[in-house]
Amino acid sequence: MNRAHAYKAAVQANEEAGEDPDFGVTMGLFSYPVLMAADILMFNAQKIPVGRDQIQHVEMARDIAQRFNHNFAEIFTLPEAVIADDVAVLQGLDGRKMSKSYNNTIPLFLTEKQLRKSINKIKTNLLEPGEPKDADGSTVFQIWSAFASAQETTRMRGEFENGIAWGEAKKQLFELINAELAAARDRYSRIMDDPAYIESVLQHGAERAREHSGPLMQKVRAAVGIGSLT
Amino acid sequence: MNRAHAYKAAVQANEEAGEDPDFGVTMGLFSYPVLMAADILMFNAQKIPVGRDQIQHVEMARDIAQRFNHNFAEIFTLPEAVIADDVAVLQGLDGRKMSKSYNNTIPLFLTEKQLRKSINKIKTNLLEPGEPKDADGSTVFQIWSAFASAQETTRMRGEFENGIAWGEAKKQLFELINAELAAARDRYSRIMDDPAYIESVLQHGAERAREHSGPLMQKVRAAVGIGSLT
Repeated sequence: MNRAHAYKAAVQANEEAGEDPDFGVTMGLFSYPVLMAADILMFNAQKIPVGRDQIQHVEMARDIAQRFNHNFAEIFTLPEAVIADDVAVLQGLDGRKMSKSYNNTIPLFLTEKQLRKSINKIKTNLLEPGEPKDADGSTVFQIWSAFASAQETTRMRGEFENGIAWGEAKKQLFELINAELAAARDRYSRIMDDPAYIESVLQHGAERAREHSGPLMQKVRAAVGIGSLT
Repeated sequence: MNRAHAYKAAVQANEEAGEDPDFGVTMGLFSYPVLMAADILMFNAQKIPVGRDQIQHVEMARDIAQRFNHNFAEIFTLPEAVIADDVAVLQGLDGRKMSKSYNNTIPLFLTEKQLRKSINKIKTNLLEPGEPKDADGSTVFQIWSAFASAQETTRMRGEFENGIAWGEAKKQLFELINAELAAARDRYSRIMDDPAYIESVLQHGAERAREHSGPLMQKVRAAVGIGSLT
């Protein structure tokens, strides 16, 4: 656990700030990779689709499985991280990596009004309408590319070269995303208005999960020597 | 957790041996005080009878309870360590503190033969029969005092002054302990031969524990926001 990237980054930040190395590091944060390993191993998962920042967690799950199999019994499947090559990191409102920790996200299921407001907050430079703009350095353009077709992306690159106004680029971005998300947003709202339905889906999922994990946990308990004396 | 005495001792030993500070420290060991806190808090225990080496663990349980009560809801009783003043640390076969970690214990429920053998292993010095012996520096005498009456202890102190042979002192110690433990040993053997009975006692205890801890855990889950959506 003390070699986890996230933990080491926290320690380094604390040391730079002259704090105790473990300042603000709760046991929940420190032992989080164990929790993630449990979620993976309990279902004998083989291929784990993750972003690059999660590779280490999958490796830790693999190490834990290996150690258990060696010490007790060959029960756990050794999981492998699978990284999709075309996964890009989106920029957030302030141009840094979009992340809840940075409070710079554009949430998927905003109302139209909130979505427009959020997109208008994307940081741009001070270039005036008519002045050519650098598409590749622009968060507006990067998010546009994530939603638009190749053809529409080429068109927008042209608009940037031709000096599209920031306001106009954001307006088009809002329209693109809004159209793309409208159906999903409707479904999201309907589901959120029906907590009994959500609860039933969760319970059904839990039941399916238990069908697999229950018998596996029996084997795990037996292997480590936890069980009835009779 | 990183301020726990046991953990800090392990780190210090590793550093002195030139090892990685956390060498051999598993997450089970590191997070052990959390487990102990759960065992205490789950039953709203108020007074916790412990040895001096366990005071810190009770303080940690108290800290965790306080933090939870502050962040979520006033649910946990703040536990207090209670130390019995007349609790002595027994010496083991080699004269160090008796401890499973030192492999120097005299287990309570040995057969007569094993008990005699174990007592004969207690480390003594090379003084011959007839030479006066120091009762207070002797493990044989210390263990004698733990089992004998005040009168019998005074008598044995006299025997030491009069130069009792080590073999004779150990023989008397065996007879004393053996007589003291005979009834309990019989009961122990009968119970150990009846795993169904042990299992039923454990299950009954678990049921009684759940009667209290079940409703408490409901409150805990509700306070942290884990519950049904309906």
